[in-house]
Amino acid sequence: MIKLDPPSVDDVYAARERIRSFVIKTPILESPHLNKQLNGRLLVKAEPLQKSGSFKFRGALNTLLQLSNTERDSGVIAYSSGNHAQGVALAAKILGIRATILMPTDAPVIKVENTKSYGAEVVHFDRYTESREEIGERLCQERGSVLVKPYDDARVIAGQGTVGLEINEQLAEIGVTPDLAIVPCGGGGLISGVSLALKSVTSNLSIYSAEPEHYDDTAMSLTAGEIVSVDPNQASICDALLAPQPGNLTFPINRSLLSGGLVVDEDEVRNAVREAFSRLKLVVEPGGAVALAAALSKKIDVAGKTVVVVCSGGNIDQALFANILTP
Amino acid sequence: MIKLDPPSVDDVYAARERIRSFVIKTPILESPHLNKQLNGRLLVKAEPLQKSGSFKFRGALNTLLQLSNTERDSGVIAYSSGNHAQGVALAAKILGIRATILMPTDAPVIKVENTKSYGAEVVHFDRYTESREEIGERLCQERGSVLVKPYDDARVIAGQGTVGLEINEQLAEIGVTPDLAIVPCGGGGLISGVSLALKSVTSNLSIYSAEPEHYDDTAMSLTAGEIVSVDPNQASICDALLAPQPGNLTFPINRSLLSGGLVVDEDEVRNAVREAFSRLKLVVEPGGAVALAAALSKKIDVAGKTVVVVCSGGNIDQALFANILTP
Repeated sequence: MIKLDPPSVDDVYAARERIRSFVIKTPILESPHLNKQLNGRLLVKAEPLQKSGSFKFRGALNTLLQLSNTERDSGVIAYSSGNHAQGVALAAKILGIRATILMPTDAPVIKVENTKSYGAEVVHFDRYTESREEIGERLCQERGSVLVKPYDDARVIAGQGTVGLEINEQLAEIGVTPDLAIVPCGGGGLISGVSLALKSVTSNLSIYSAEPEHYDDTAMSLTAGEIVSVDPNQASICDALLAPQPGNLTFPINRSLLSGGLVVDEDEVRNAVREAFSRLKLVVEPGGAVALAAALSKKIDVAGKTVVVVCSGGNIDQALFANILTP
Repeated sequence: MIKLDPPSVDDVYAARERIRSFVIKTPILESPHLNKQLNGRLLVKAEPLQKSGSFKFRGALNTLLQLSNTERDSGVIAYSSGNHAQGVALAAKILGIRATILMPTDAPVIKVENTKSYGAEVVHFDRYTESREEIGERLCQERGSVLVKPYDDARVIAGQGTVGLEINEQLAEIGVTPDLAIVPCGGGGLISGVSLALKSVTSNLSIYSAEPEHYDDTAMSLTAGEIVSVDPNQASICDALLAPQPGNLTFPINRSLLSGGLVVDEDEVRNAVREAFSRLKLVVEPGGAVALAAALSKKIDVAGKTVVVVCSGGNIDQALFANILTP
């Protein structure tokens, strides 16, 4: 495995040009009801509307577009509970690259089906008893394929950071300077890339990570000043955010740029999914809704402030969504 | 009541400039799954993401921005099952105008609550036994207020047509020329305005209206070559599309520009709502999904073609949405 240097904001700008023609510039949504609830201004970057249903398509595409012809021919491998899987599978399909995806046996059905429908081969593993990293490394060796890591890769972080560059552009268009940003955090790829982008334009912006209860490893690590792990064997409705510790590449960036970490419980997440449905007409999966949940449950004081929140994905099974809508 | 001349495409362009800073330029969404289903290319204009949850905000705003100071001071009145109500109420709130909205007693709860939350006074009527037009006229006379009609007003049609101008711009950006467009149709305000806009750029485009069963008055009128009414006392899941006949201003435009009318049944609408949920991450109400339903159920052959479909609104009660997701 090649150890990559951390990305710079220039890498994020380069990623933006590289992937521009493939991605949807997702809108920023706003609701008078939500603004009233918060007594502030809430601007929601709607990444569920991205191709593959989450921001993960950006980082996957930025990585695959930088592979050599030899690497492309040998195919790619990724491990993921689902959104990275779909992002890599769709990017590989578009570029004509063979993809093999390792997914846990308890991944949401929609994520497995979508990954397969993009033409990828899906290999299942038990996330409680098997190491996806080990299986991934073995498959890479057996097949000579390239591993596309979910967050600890400068190309992936730079790709996810294009979300932040779009936010910069979109806020400039409406003449708004944000006071705060809250971004969902699993391994930290999205928030580290977004923070590089946002801070390059608004240096005094405060950025907070949002995580679900039991998986607040980034919040704890930020407090400790070093990487701290959580028990990875806990159940959570936020299947997209189950990384047990911050990444080796992402954490130094986040430690340098974030103001702190916010943590939300399941009821707060469910409420955020309902508010996104009724106020924004946006389908958001639980893991994608943690930053919105943190804002709506006022984990930090946003009164009188302009807050940018990223909703990061919308790949949720019908039955769970229906369940959340009928509490 | 002043009889207004029909709008021209220049009125639509003027509306675009007038309302530009207030509206969301809603994205065009696309799904590889839906393209595969249709063996064509489906581009979905996502108006549920518009402020107030539907395109109706555009026409309401374009109208209110053209009122005289005296008219503004006397307040506005509108009758609506809900989306026009919310559009007028929000536009009035933004401009500091008093709004009174007539709504049927069986309007969806979310639409009534949202209308009230925008600060409008809501007056209820029974749509099976009372005439909203008569109550509206009476209230206008009593209060000296201005009636904002839901579709038969050139300012409203021009405002809705800005959806079409945005589609023109967005397709030009990705270098696409559409073969077909399908647009939901109640009284015909949206489709007449959109058709003016689309045909001004792509004159050989074929445009079809989409209506729910029992409310296919535009399809029948297009076939007959004159305005035909349906029985207005039939139940439909598509509460936004219950106009019993085409408008006097909208029908001549539609007769001149449309290629025909498509009709979908309730199962097809429910399926379209589910597909928008799972493939586009978009919340679409039944009436807003009829054009998508017409495409997905292949009411017209779209194989090998590029089809633009407008999803027009997303104001649906939680319980109904949950019901549709668990068939």
